Amino acid sequence: MLVKEDDEIFMDEDSIREYDKRYNLHSWSAQKNLNPLVITKAEGIYFWDINGKRYFDMSSQLVNVNVGHGNKEIINAIKEQAERLPFIGPSYAVDVRSKLAAKVIEKAPDNMGKVFFTLGGADANENAIKIARMFTGRQKIFSRYRSYHGASFGAANLSGEPRRYTCEPGLTGFIKFFDPYIYREKIEFKSEEDASRYYLDKLKEQIIYEGADNVAAIFLETVTGSNGVIIPPKGYLQGIRDICDEFGILMVCDEVMTGWGRTGEWFACDNWNVKPDIITFAKGITCGYVPLGGVIVDKKIAEYFDDNVLMCGLTYNAHPIGCAAGCATIDVYEKEGLIENSKKMGKVLGAGLEKLKEKHACVGDVRYIGLFSAVELVKHKGTKEPLVPYGKDPEKIMPRIIDSLRERGFSTYSHENCILVAPPLIIKEEELKEALSILDEVLDFVDEYIEKA
Amino acid sequence: MLVKEDDEIFMDEDSIREYDKRYNLHSWSAQKNLNPLVITKAEGIYFWDINGKRYFDMSSQLVNVNVGHGNKEIINAIKEQAERLPFIGPSYAVDVRSKLAAKVIEKAPDNMGKVFFTLGGADANENAIKIARMFTGRQKIFSRYRSYHGASFGAANLSGEPRRYTCEPGLTGFIKFFDPYIYREKIEFKSEEDASRYYLDKLKEQIIYEGADNVAAIFLETVTGSNGVIIPPKGYLQGIRDICDEFGILMVCDEVMTGWGRTGEWFACDNWNVKPDIITFAKGITCGYVPLGGVIVDKKIAEYFDDNVLMCGLTYNAHPIGCAAGCATIDVYEKEGLIENSKKMGKVLGAGLEKLKEKHACVGDVRYIGLFSAVELVKHKGTKEPLVPYGKDPEKIMPRIIDSLRERGFSTYSHENCILVAPPLIIKEEELKEALSILDEVLDFVDEYIEKA
Repeated sequence: MLVKEDDEIFMDEDSIREYDKRYNLHSWSAQKNLNPLVITKAEGIYFWDINGKRYFDMSSQLVNVNVGHGNKEIINAIKEQAERLPFIGPSYAVDVRSKLAAKVIEKAPDNMGKVFFTLGGADANENAIKIARMFTGRQKIFSRYRSYHGASFGAANLSGEPRRYTCEPGLTGFIKFFDPYIYREKIEFKSEEDASRYYLDKLKEQIIYEGADNVAAIFLETVTGSNGVIIPPKGYLQGIRDICDEFGILMVCDEVMTGWGRTGEWFACDNWNVKPDIITFAKGITCGYVPLGGVIVDKKIAEYFDDNVLMCGLTYNAHPIGCAAGCATIDVYEKEGLIENSKKMGKVLGAGLEKLKEKHACVGDVRYIGLFSAVELVKHKGTKEPLVPYGKDPEKIMPRIIDSLRERGFSTYSHENCILVAPPLIIKEEELKEALSILDEVLDFVDEYIEKA
Repeated sequence: MLVKEDDEIFMDEDSIREYDKRYNLHSWSAQKNLNPLVITKAEGIYFWDINGKRYFDMSSQLVNVNVGHGNKEIINAIKEQAERLPFIGPSYAVDVRSKLAAKVIEKAPDNMGKVFFTLGGADANENAIKIARMFTGRQKIFSRYRSYHGASFGAANLSGEPRRYTCEPGLTGFIKFFDPYIYREKIEFKSEEDASRYYLDKLKEQIIYEGADNVAAIFLETVTGSNGVIIPPKGYLQGIRDICDEFGILMVCDEVMTGWGRTGEWFACDNWNVKPDIITFAKGITCGYVPLGGVIVDKKIAEYFDDNVLMCGLTYNAHPIGCAAGCATIDVYEKEGLIENSKKMGKVLGAGLEKLKEKHACVGDVRYIGLFSAVELVKHKGTKEPLVPYGKDPEKIMPRIIDSLRERGFSTYSHENCILVAPPLIIKEEELKEALSILDEVLDFVDEYIEKA
């Protein structure tokens, strides 16, 4: 048959690529012209392809490898748990599960009560929708246009961006509202507070039109992630909290990307001292070493399920190896002071990005908080015309920019007209500056491109 | 704070239980009266609670630990991959991913082309729905009433049983049809073929009423799992295949429970030599040691996505540790001859169950294929009245039976009025007989109960 019957797991580059191409479907792509890099090694803020070429991991893969690659503490925790008890069903109590749940609640805002573990961000959001509906007895779910909450049907219907289209016609009762995307707003605001007031008034009006008593929850990425690192203006999150309190609506913060130190705090909502009713998380809880996600619910919701059946479940709820890796990961954040480093290096990143914005005609806006940032590319700073129109890129300009960066050893990804910059939280100042100099160089080419266009 | 700041991951029974209760939400339950066993060890067909009590794992946990607990080959594969490269994003090619994809296609029916890896069964089914709609350009999805395909919104809308209710009002275009549940059919059939003809005619009529040109796919658990191990009568699956071919509908077999040897073949559809267009799988591919699932598509579908964008994705698509564990697990099935053992021990199991049916007034029906079986309990053999009515069990009769079994060291779960019996595929004849003698003993009590009632 096609697989050689030896135990040799190491294959050469050609066979890895051939088998990959012949038997694998890759996500979000037509398959014919894919030519994926073959990766064999990753350590710290870098990874290497099979030919030994090194890449700065400037997106922490999919904004999940917060502690960097090859962390021995997490690897050892996985190995130990694999030896002890790799799996037992979700109806049992297991030490690592008990321990991780306590640790998660310890790090979460102090109104939080219990956690339901899942495998990733999408199923965390799926379960959060169900929990919000069960708890409130209401149907409608609000979420935002510039958002991504996952690709399964529930999570995709939460999402506002084009990746939801495949899951439509969608679920009834899912309503979208606009993000506080000040850079692209046609209104000139006097202050951040002013902007917040505008968006909150609009949202409140929309909630009233939809029937406030029918609304179960407002879902939002605390800081919008893939869709351009849109940071809530001052007063915005507290305003959402107030609207939720006024109408008995649950505030659900999707912290899948922003949780676990990415924005310089344990959770992004901590930046504004706002306490959601539900937090969903994944990515940084294990940094991808093994899959894990979860839903944190506050004490009143936790108590509701003392007597009411929680209609949620999955075979790999609270997977022991995932829980062991989660415990070790939280320890690493603490011991290595990574939340603090995210905040500190975030300042270096911010200053660097501001310089790029000043220098480059193609950089319309830069947005950053902690080590989470985006560079928004435009054809013209004055008109703010995006480098590529929404949902389209017929000339493949953005992939060409990403390829250029990668050729120079700077790995990240783009979304619409934004380049994401979100390195591991262990990055040092000189490394960050070295990486940004590569970005600088490639932006020179983009400047040339828009000048010619 | 609540977590002691030491590195001791081993906690005593009381603190494990206290933390579990205080901080964890358990699936499918009201939380107040839960008192989960604390599990510390699992090996082969057994697991042990913290007090050293041993249990036969007669459900292979959630019908996923096919190779049994503590398999060194899989554990070592996990440990090695954790050392080498625990994670890299899904856009790259990695040796273990290439190798596992090739192995999966090798074991699948020969019309299969490519695989898209997920984390479990629910997201495998979510993606299969999307793929079927993309490929056919059609909307409607048929699935069956006595079925469970997962708890996320897409998978729950496929499911026919009560666990879908929380995800309703649901997705448009999801249509349910009846399973070939001959034991509970009011019609007397002359033969299995006769029964198949009846169900297939009804299905065809329903498809025509729904508009055959609008139907993208028919989803079915090849053998219905949790909902009572309902085995397709002779000719049924081929009949589904024929209907699909006639109307250009995709046949999707959910082999999440039945795949990887459970029914005595690599996939359950191999028992009838039927080739679906799509197979979804999870559970047995890694036996739960790490989470993994996937969607296998046939060659024509694979080819379609050469030029069309596959609108599917997840952060942990083709997770390297999952792929490494999957490779090792398939090797274990082969080296230990477990597919054959499943078939061989299945005969012992079947004979044992038939004896129980003969002996016990409470056993209405037993259904078995390979090491996958259910014991259907009734109040009266003649009337076939179920021991508990559909979707209800106010007196908690079934949990009491399950508790009785567990007290005697026989661990499994129930669904409606059925007890599931599905031990690891490594089980030996004498072990199986010993376990069945415990079941025999408990069924005596059930006999007494129905006599009194």
